[in-house]
Amino acid sequence: MFAMASHPTIDEVMDYSLNAFHSYKNTSFETRTRLSDEIVHQLTLLRNNLIDTASKETHLTIERLQTEFDRTLHQFQSYTRAYSTGNWMLPRIDTGKKDVRKMYIPLGPVVVYGASNFPFAYATPGGDVASALAAGCTVVVKAHPAHPQTAALAAKAIQNAIQNLNLHPGTFQQIELTDAAHGKALVQHPATAAVAFTGSYHGGKQLFNWANEREHPIPVFAEMGSVNPVFIAGEGSNSDVEQLAVKLSVSVSNSCGQFCTKPGIIIGLQSNGWIQFIHALQHQLSLKVPAPMLHRGIHQQFIQGIQQVAGTPGVQCLLHTHPNTDNVQPVLHEVSAADFLNEKSLQEEVFGPCTLLVTCHSTDEMLAVAQSLKGQLTGTVISPEFHDAFLMELIDILQSKVGRLILNDVPTGVEVVTAMHHGGPFPATTDSRFTSVGPDSILRFVRPVTYQQFPAHLLPDALKNDNPLNIWRIVNGCMKNDAL
Amino acid sequence: MFAMASHPTIDEVMDYSLNAFHSYKNTSFETRTRLSDEIVHQLTLLRNNLIDTASKETHLTIERLQTEFDRTLHQFQSYTRAYSTGNWMLPRIDTGKKDVRKMYIPLGPVVVYGASNFPFAYATPGGDVASALAAGCTVVVKAHPAHPQTAALAAKAIQNAIQNLNLHPGTFQQIELTDAAHGKALVQHPATAAVAFTGSYHGGKQLFNWANEREHPIPVFAEMGSVNPVFIAGEGSNSDVEQLAVKLSVSVSNSCGQFCTKPGIIIGLQSNGWIQFIHALQHQLSLKVPAPMLHRGIHQQFIQGIQQVAGTPGVQCLLHTHPNTDNVQPVLHEVSAADFLNEKSLQEEVFGPCTLLVTCHSTDEMLAVAQSLKGQLTGTVISPEFHDAFLMELIDILQSKVGRLILNDVPTGVEVVTAMHHGGPFPATTDSRFTSVGPDSILRFVRPVTYQQFPAHLLPDALKNDNPLNIWRIVNGCMKNDAL
Repeated sequence: MFAMASHPTIDEVMDYSLNAFHSYKNTSFETRTRLSDEIVHQLTLLRNNLIDTASKETHLTIERLQTEFDRTLHQFQSYTRAYSTGNWMLPRIDTGKKDVRKMYIPLGPVVVYGASNFPFAYATPGGDVASALAAGCTVVVKAHPAHPQTAALAAKAIQNAIQNLNLHPGTFQQIELTDAAHGKALVQHPATAAVAFTGSYHGGKQLFNWANEREHPIPVFAEMGSVNPVFIAGEGSNSDVEQLAVKLSVSVSNSCGQFCTKPGIIIGLQSNGWIQFIHALQHQLSLKVPAPMLHRGIHQQFIQGIQQVAGTPGVQCLLHTHPNTDNVQPVLHEVSAADFLNEKSLQEEVFGPCTLLVTCHSTDEMLAVAQSLKGQLTGTVISPEFHDAFLMELIDILQSKVGRLILNDVPTGVEVVTAMHHGGPFPATTDSRFTSVGPDSILRFVRPVTYQQFPAHLLPDALKNDNPLNIWRIVNGCMKNDAL
Repeated sequence: MFAMASHPTIDEVMDYSLNAFHSYKNTSFETRTRLSDEIVHQLTLLRNNLIDTASKETHLTIERLQTEFDRTLHQFQSYTRAYSTGNWMLPRIDTGKKDVRKMYIPLGPVVVYGASNFPFAYATPGGDVASALAAGCTVVVKAHPAHPQTAALAAKAIQNAIQNLNLHPGTFQQIELTDAAHGKALVQHPATAAVAFTGSYHGGKQLFNWANEREHPIPVFAEMGSVNPVFIAGEGSNSDVEQLAVKLSVSVSNSCGQFCTKPGIIIGLQSNGWIQFIHALQHQLSLKVPAPMLHRGIHQQFIQGIQQVAGTPGVQCLLHTHPNTDNVQPVLHEVSAADFLNEKSLQEEVFGPCTLLVTCHSTDEMLAVAQSLKGQLTGTVISPEFHDAFLMELIDILQSKVGRLILNDVPTGVEVVTAMHHGGPFPATTDSRFTSVGPDSILRFVRPVTYQQFPAHLLPDALKNDNPLNIWRIVNGCMKNDAL
């Protein structure tokens, strides 16, 4: 264990991370739980400072950041607790002709690129870091340039926790990168074992390509773009329509629409109810107070994005925002399904408080819109009942496109629970088989190893006959939580 | 459902597969079990014919093919049975603030490239097909050109089973490809959802690159090369040495050494025991009856491979084979660890009955050899006891390199059980997180989907409150197999 230079090179950082991995990978469930608890403690000590700093750097409200902060602590706690149950790893033991036993081991140093829209929950102290540490991986975070002070404070809290537990200081490191060439060097460094990213399609796909160009390709878990289609197959009564408009207006505009699960297109069937819904949504969105976006770049991209939508043939603008002020207002566009189907660019995510209404003239057209979609994080269907064959077909099509199917609810508000899948087919993510939210996010950073004919004293605890960790295992094909 | 042209194009084949997928993906556990049983029945009807045909086409012995045939039936049976237990998928249910439930769904049409060395178990009726069908995916097999008649017979058996169950005939298709451009078209077809391959590094890496060049990249599970190092850290008594030599000579030369888990390098410590072992192994291998290899191409590659090893500085030839006969004899080379470490090409797999002895002059040198290795399917350590710190370090290094760690046993003979991991870090495979043997191979062909706020009647059976499939699930964080 050696101290790092004050401005270490990427080689030094990654070698240090690998060095730390050699000891950290062997830490017990108990040690990782204690680390997680200590990180929660250290973050809590800095709570007010972190929230104030983040609010200044991101323009997100104190209230919103308080909620996010608590969620961030919950992530650390729940991932490590879930890790300790062992349920996610479910060791396998077969004692037939040969004694073979299988469990997961950590991959190695994980490089994390955080997001700007969640300075806590998806950034330096976020879910990627929590799950990588729970898995037994060391972590190198590329600090997000949009909230450098928040990132530095959070990193300090995590480093304090690591120091207090006498763990190798290379277990968690944070670096600042400004040069894109350094990003490539980070992904392609031989010690880097996996990459987690939350951000744009362009950024995520670039990391994916770099990782696959390596002599030894590595997994990249990039969460990229999603328009999170909401299909309104039936609006119900007048009061239902008003309620739905309120709910969706919040989902579109909360935190200035800067959520990866913001509903970017809302698809309805031409009818009086649909017209009523459009008016109600327009009204609700028009009531929102103008607010600043995360940073200048995001603001500019938002303005460009809505201008491109507005300039697309057939698109009507129902609500617009002034392009030359610091604050933005929710933007609402409408287009016919026929025009939507003709113009692929309308499927691109516009990050910010806006949504595109797509009016269908038949259920067949609605199915065609569903069929035309690219991979998404979520897909939502709103309907007073679910018995129609058309609805079954719509849900079936959506299931092939999304990571999470939602009925009569909104896509924003991602529950941090075991049953959450926050992911989805490309281009929503680069790997539809893994989630970035919930304890199963740990599975991104492990791989299975089989131990054949091992003497008892050499078996990892998870695989020992007497089951000292008291976890569930598949023993000769049966689920058991007792000793062999 | 329509009949296919007699020489369908790749577009026609893949579209037909996707068409079949739309119904096959929704089949129940029960239907897939019945399909698997019927495939076993149909293959059994053709048993003698298949074994005779395969023996003529592959030069493998009848006895060996009988064993492989039984293993192939066992794969179908055990994967579907394991599928029915649901243990591998372990649905997650959380009923807190939101009702969210998660399970796996099949990916879509899977393209399978079979291997030449296992005309049954890793080819047309092999584990990739069995696991893809169990997962609910449709399959397109590229028939291996080295055993076309075996492939055609096996395909007929599977197609008969599908017909007898009144399933869509596109559920399983087999095609012959001769042009490499067609291989690319197959991998890059929009309907192709995943690729499974067993073969050379060159072939597997090509498929991997094609898949990642797609607009929508897809997973490729390519099992490629492995030298399966065996470290002899202590030979034990004289009789132990003789036994070890017998065991390893069989592992090196059985089925003409044409196993992906054949020990390609055997590493020992300079000592009287090691010299005795070398003599005993040389003697045992010299007793083997010359045998023909799978086909001309494999034979030529073997001759080239051993000539390249023999021509490497420092390599001594202890046993050789005549390059110009149809049959080959086991080949044995020896090299010092220093020379081995100097010459990366000695780490390349030579497919066939040969192995390279690497003599170390210290335990440090043995650790250096372990550290120098690329990713492997297996790593083996032989020792009379396992208490030495050096051995712990050796096992720790090997664990970071391999998919299966073996103590005092041989790597050949891959048990088809739940605890098997047949895979390993790149370049052993393109994805170290998945196995191609055992029921967990199903996990290659599924992805998770979360169902949020679904009414009871729309939930898949695996997620229903009353647990009609009677499977284990993680309910609000706890392992349960009863109703909610």
